[in-house]
Amino acid sequence: MSDLLRTRPSSTAAALALFDDAATIGHALAFEAALARAEAAEGLIARDTADTIVSVCASLRIDPAHLAEEATLAGTLAIPLVNRLRAAVGGEAGDAVHKGATSQDVADTVLMLQAKAATELLRNDLDRVCAALYALADRHAATPAIGRTLLQDAMPVGFGLRLAQAAGGIDNAAHRLGAEVSANAKIQFGGAAGTRARLDGKGAAIARRMADDLGLAAGVPWHARRVGVAAIASSLGIVIGALGKLARDVSLLAQNAVGEAREPAITGRGGSSAMAHKRNPTGCQITLSAAIRAPGLVASMLSGLPQEEERGLGGWQAEGPMLADLFLLAAGSAEAMAVVVEGLEIDQTAIARNLAAAGVGADIGESESIVAAILAHHRKSD
Amino acid sequence: MSDLLRTRPSSTAAALALFDDAATIGHALAFEAALARAEAAEGLIARDTADTIVSVCASLRIDPAHLAEEATLAGTLAIPLVNRLRAAVGGEAGDAVHKGATSQDVADTVLMLQAKAATELLRNDLDRVCAALYALADRHAATPAIGRTLLQDAMPVGFGLRLAQAAGGIDNAAHRLGAEVSANAKIQFGGAAGTRARLDGKGAAIARRMADDLGLAAGVPWHARRVGVAAIASSLGIVIGALGKLARDVSLLAQNAVGEAREPAITGRGGSSAMAHKRNPTGCQITLSAAIRAPGLVASMLSGLPQEEERGLGGWQAEGPMLADLFLLAAGSAEAMAVVVEGLEIDQTAIARNLAAAGVGADIGESESIVAAILAHHRKSD
Amino acid sequence: MSDLLRTRPSSTAAALALFDDAATIGHALAFEAALARAEAAEGLIARDTADTIVSVCASLRIDPAHLAEEATLAGTLAIPLVNRLRAAVGGEAGDAVHKGATSQDVADTVLMLQAKAATELLRNDLDRVCAALYALADRHAATPAIGRTLLQDAMPVGFGLRLAQAAGGIDNAAHRLGAEVSANAKIQFGGAAGTRARLDGKGAAIARRMADDLGLAAGVPWHARRVGVAAIASSLGIVIGALGKLARDVSLLAQNAVGEAREPAITGRGGSSAMAHKRNPTGCQITLSAAIRAPGLVASMLSGLPQEEERGLGGWQAEGPMLADLFLLAAGSAEAMAVVVEGLEIDQTAIARNLAAAGVGADIGESESIVAAILAHHRKSD
Amino acid sequence: MSDLLRTRPSSTAAALALFDDAATIGHALAFEAALARAEAAEGLIARDTADTIVSVCASLRIDPAHLAEEATLAGTLAIPLVNRLRAAVGGEAGDAVHKGATSQDVADTVLMLQAKAATELLRNDLDRVCAALYALADRHAATPAIGRTLLQDAMPVGFGLRLAQAAGGIDNAAHRLGAEVSANAKIQFGGAAGTRARLDGKGAAIARRMADDLGLAAGVPWHARRVGVAAIASSLGIVIGALGKLARDVSLLAQNAVGEAREPAITGRGGSSAMAHKRNPTGCQITLSAAIRAPGLVASMLSGLPQEEERGLGGWQAEGPMLADLFLLAAGSAEAMAVVVEGLEIDQTAIARNLAAAGVGADIGESESIVAAILAHHRKSD
Repeated sequence: MSDLLRTRPSSTAAALALFDDAATIGHALAFEAALARAEAAEGLIARDTADTIVSVCASLRIDPAHLAEEATLAGTLAIPLVNRLRAAVGGEAGDAVHKGATSQDVADTVLMLQAKAATELLRNDLDRVCAALYALADRHAATPAIGRTLLQDAMPVGFGLRLAQAAGGIDNAAHRLGAEVSANAKIQFGGAAGTRARLDGKGAAIARRMADDLGLAAGVPWHARRVGVAAIASSLGIVIGALGKLARDVSLLAQNAVGEAREPAITGRGGSSAMAHKRNPTGCQITLSAAIRAPGLVASMLSGLPQEEERGLGGWQAEGPMLADLFLLAAGSAEAMAVVVEGLEIDQTAIARNLAAAGVGADIGESESIVAAILAHHRKSD
Repeated sequence: MSDLLRTRPSSTAAALALFDDAATIGHALAFEAALARAEAAEGLIARDTADTIVSVCASLRIDPAHLAEEATLAGTLAIPLVNRLRAAVGGEAGDAVHKGATSQDVADTVLMLQAKAATELLRNDLDRVCAALYALADRHAATPAIGRTLLQDAMPVGFGLRLAQAAGGIDNAAHRLGAEVSANAKIQFGGAAGTRARLDGKGAAIARRMADDLGLAAGVPWHARRVGVAAIASSLGIVIGALGKLARDVSLLAQNAVGEAREPAITGRGGSSAMAHKRNPTGCQITLSAAIRAPGLVASMLSGLPQEEERGLGGWQAEGPMLADLFLLAAGSAEAMAVVVEGLEIDQTAIARNLAAAGVGADIGESESIVAAILAHHRKSD
Repeated sequence: MSDLLRTRPSSTAAALALFDDAATIGHALAFEAALARAEAAEGLIARDTADTIVSVCASLRIDPAHLAEEATLAGTLAIPLVNRLRAAVGGEAGDAVHKGATSQDVADTVLMLQAKAATELLRNDLDRVCAALYALADRHAATPAIGRTLLQDAMPVGFGLRLAQAAGGIDNAAHRLGAEVSANAKIQFGGAAGTRARLDGKGAAIARRMADDLGLAAGVPWHARRVGVAAIASSLGIVIGALGKLARDVSLLAQNAVGEAREPAITGRGGSSAMAHKRNPTGCQITLSAAIRAPGLVASMLSGLPQEEERGLGGWQAEGPMLADLFLLAAGSAEAMAVVVEGLEIDQTAIARNLAAAGVGADIGESESIVAAILAHHRKSD
Repeated sequence: MSDLLRTRPSSTAAALALFDDAATIGHALAFEAALARAEAAEGLIARDTADTIVSVCASLRIDPAHLAEEATLAGTLAIPLVNRLRAAVGGEAGDAVHKGATSQDVADTVLMLQAKAATELLRNDLDRVCAALYALADRHAATPAIGRTLLQDAMPVGFGLRLAQAAGGIDNAAHRLGAEVSANAKIQFGGAAGTRARLDGKGAAIARRMADDLGLAAGVPWHARRVGVAAIASSLGIVIGALGKLARDVSLLAQNAVGEAREPAITGRGGSSAMAHKRNPTGCQITLSAAIRAPGLVASMLSGLPQEEERGLGGWQAEGPMLADLFLLAAGSAEAMAVVVEGLEIDQTAIARNLAAAGVGADIGESESIVAAILAHHRKSD
């Protein structure tokens, strides 16, 4: 059973791969391997027991379809996965698997590993968008164009100011996302009730080792303290909205009656099944669609915050698929808009015609210096 | 690439199958076949041309992965799918494929076919939930229990009243969903700009034939009039919330210190990776998780309503995956709660103990007649 | 302390008056009066006791500011209000006030009375919108105009088809709202734990009398069964979204480069503090703004559905202000769009010019018969 | 017309005062006064003209009701307000009022001034919550209690760990809010199309002066770049959710069958209109109610991000009331939970009894060191 058509065109193959079954199972086994290594280093389990576990984690093949069925019954992925790992390791070493950990430790760590990888992928496309937009903004900073407010012709602007403003929003959103992921993509390791019990007082040390091993931030358990995840989700929602602002503008400028800019012509893209002459703003469509979908996902992430006691019922279990969807939508939008702005066709004749029609002169005020200030801020913050 | 683990345990295999790639492609080809048949019946295309198209629709095999890649570029599934179908039919008959239709006609009709099938599946589980709950409510209508308000012991209630109230909400929500799907799961057939142009004035007749053929309601095109889809989505949100109310109550009653009811013991279900003695309320978890996720999806559906002009940019394209998610969550919750209530363990000793501890007597007022009224309403509306 | 500026321009004075302190206190006292009358009729309290209570309810003056302070401490309006009423009635009759009722009975009944009144107000403006739009649609059904899809020029449409589609969506949404309010604006009367205890078995009869008295539907208590309120809220969200679709189209058509329609010129409306030449689409602004705000309110209403046990903690208390906001936004949007469509300026020259520029001929297909079908459906359902 | 009852008990009088009509008008006049001062300092208008404007701004009395009516027609508060100010100043000095500014400059600056003041108010109560919780956490760090996961008894925890975790989340959320407000509460000054035209190139200098004068951050215009406002809104949503987690826990612990903690007894608070014996968790109710309402508001803020071109239609106009609501809900929740935790009654006997009943020993693992780590992190970040 494949579900690819539901995920496209809103996301990209590269982003989907970061959240697919193979990636999820791989990260879960990486958690168990890191745990075994850390517990051996702290003397909780024998070194060769850890070696065996690590080795089985590296070679174990798990059928996602079977695992999914069992996860449904168990209510969590970790239980059937750990059962398989224990059986594959076997004997006393098998008993040492997952020692001191709980299902949510696995689930949350997997999610954070995926968040980190997806952020890196996403940042690359966001950088592409900003670089292309800033370059265009710089080039067109002094080109007088009619500015539009409340969807009506207003007063002149430098055409590049519009682009610089869009870029500035995306840039700011990208930095916020990066900062939130750096701060909150933490190892989860607390055990059954989040106390790191039965670890001979070595729990904090084990968690630190695991964090280093897996490339995550260290810290105390956060099973029912979900503000970090919520902050990552919100940051993604803001990234998508900032891209949506750009998509809104490009799609408005690309209207036939306006014609100031349009998406690049790409074979197979933006066609119509009924009208051969059309060039649909497909990149903008993907992004505006994401900008409709993302806010609801963020709301649901926030509404899950009041989780019960040590580890909640329903709240954290809801987060995984929603955070994945937010990353997938962000990745799809960023890639789509990178293609759009890297090939954006700007029609200076249309810009001049529309400005003349407005009859409000060509005084673009301080447009150029505002563009320069936005560019300078960008260079400083990078 | 498989994505099963992101969809479980929140949904069921049966529901996922209704929205998978095979189902989507199958419905899209069914649209094209129904269109060809209807256009032949109305004399727009030759009968044997239609026969050829119908026959190819029945036998065509399409690789979802390739189609997904092309759909991403095109921004829609229909363009690459129609291209393949035309190529497979070939010649003049190939030119007759998709005649007078637009991509959105296919996408919306596919979505409505999936909505209809999913509603049927869902109604079956909702009926199970209601039947089991009403039976329990009837049996325990006169059992005095402590009623709780604002999470504090309040005054006595008939234990069955609590169950009848939960059932009544689910029942009402199920009927609303059924009514909205019946009214709004309509054929979409309007062509490029929703005018049914180039069909020799036979557009309405073709649409009626297609609706009959595919088992959908007939009507005028609704490309940018999305209130029907929004109403289906809202109804699903209400179904999930009503199931969530039941899950909330069962999970509160199942707390160790309360112990009035708990989920049935099922091998492999509700275990803990760290605590063998626990019986987690896994069905409630699935449902409460869905009740966190659904409202955001409904919000996003509603925020997409102001779609542009004849066919919008981004709005309707966002709806498909979100409506699918709502159906998937509803199906997962309904199935989970059906299992929970069909095997619900009610502990009369705990009920009596908690009531006695409250020290407010055992006057359950009109609990029995309220339960009877809810049951009577249910029997009448079915 | 007044808060008027936060509520404008998004709503109207008439709608705000339905939800202001005077209205709320008035409805709460009407509840207590209806309760006394019904209990006297059923022999639970003496007739002259009821007369005294009813009389005091009619004359009691309560300072909203003081009541608000006490309501904050109590967590509910009803407790301090009933205390005042009891004190004002005095003696044994005072003890008979609020007999068998609970705070939530008052709060929910007040909310439903406000919902009913606001729906009537709203329906009036929605009818104005539909009537004006259908008339315009009929007049311009055969006027060829360029249809636009994905924000690009596509194929010709009858200009009136666009208006008829917008009207059809609003019409459908208005009917759904009316039906949901009729079905769900119910008396709430259940007492402390929703069992109608201590009423000598007359609870159902008292509730029926109160419903008749107050003009609400009768039924069993629904303290923790909130699907009806959620359905009203969703229906409002759909109404606002349907109005938003109209506002989106008018604002796009009113762009200077398009110019096919624009809002009427009204003194004091749509001006600019910086640009005297502008005519801003202020009615569309109000409506698009509401269409951004409403979906989140609906989501929050749905996320409150899983309320705890007999009467929940936080869920129903959240509903009142949100349902009020939805009605206020709907009323503001409906009134704004009524003004817009009743005075809509349609520029046939611009329509013709834009169509010619598209170069796709003037075949409007079955536009006229689709408009006729939408109009016929409207006439039938009214 | 007063609307106090719709705003209580969810917010506080102090918070409401920050957003009431007097505050809004006061901030708007402060904007105009600061603008006049800055323009005089930069030589754009005469010093005595500025003095006159400043003086009238200080003494002008505006009736909110009249202003609200006119704002509804104009679609914005600024137009009628500036008209009155111009008339009051009169003559040539009147023409100098609002020079180079646009309505949105006023609206956004007012909103940011309110955001700043509300954040300060809020931080005070958040600090109270954290201080009280951390003190309790420290005191009860070593008290063995049963930990609960998925609403089932699980393994022992230090009772203080639960409190420290809740505090840590609130603390983190409070810091994020503070940082976002510091970074994003910026002066808005861009003029009609955001170019600072007709200011002799002094626009940036004027904006800096105004920012200093009003206590806001400086920067380029951000009329259609709303990521900063969205980030403030999200941060508020996270604050409310973090308070909601605490409220969830307190309300669960306060259940009669659990009894480990409960809200303080306060005269007039948490009573019941039907049950004199009850002590309702009113502070938790206020907070859980806010936690239901906030996510939808955040979603709507995010869905407004894709605003059109230089200044959008509907998007930014929607933000003001929603951001105000978020601050009001946050303030109400923070104050409520400050009262709750400062007087929290902890029942050590119940804690011990519940732990014994679970029969899982009393090994609280590293609870104490985790509490210590959370406290140390708090001290460092303050």
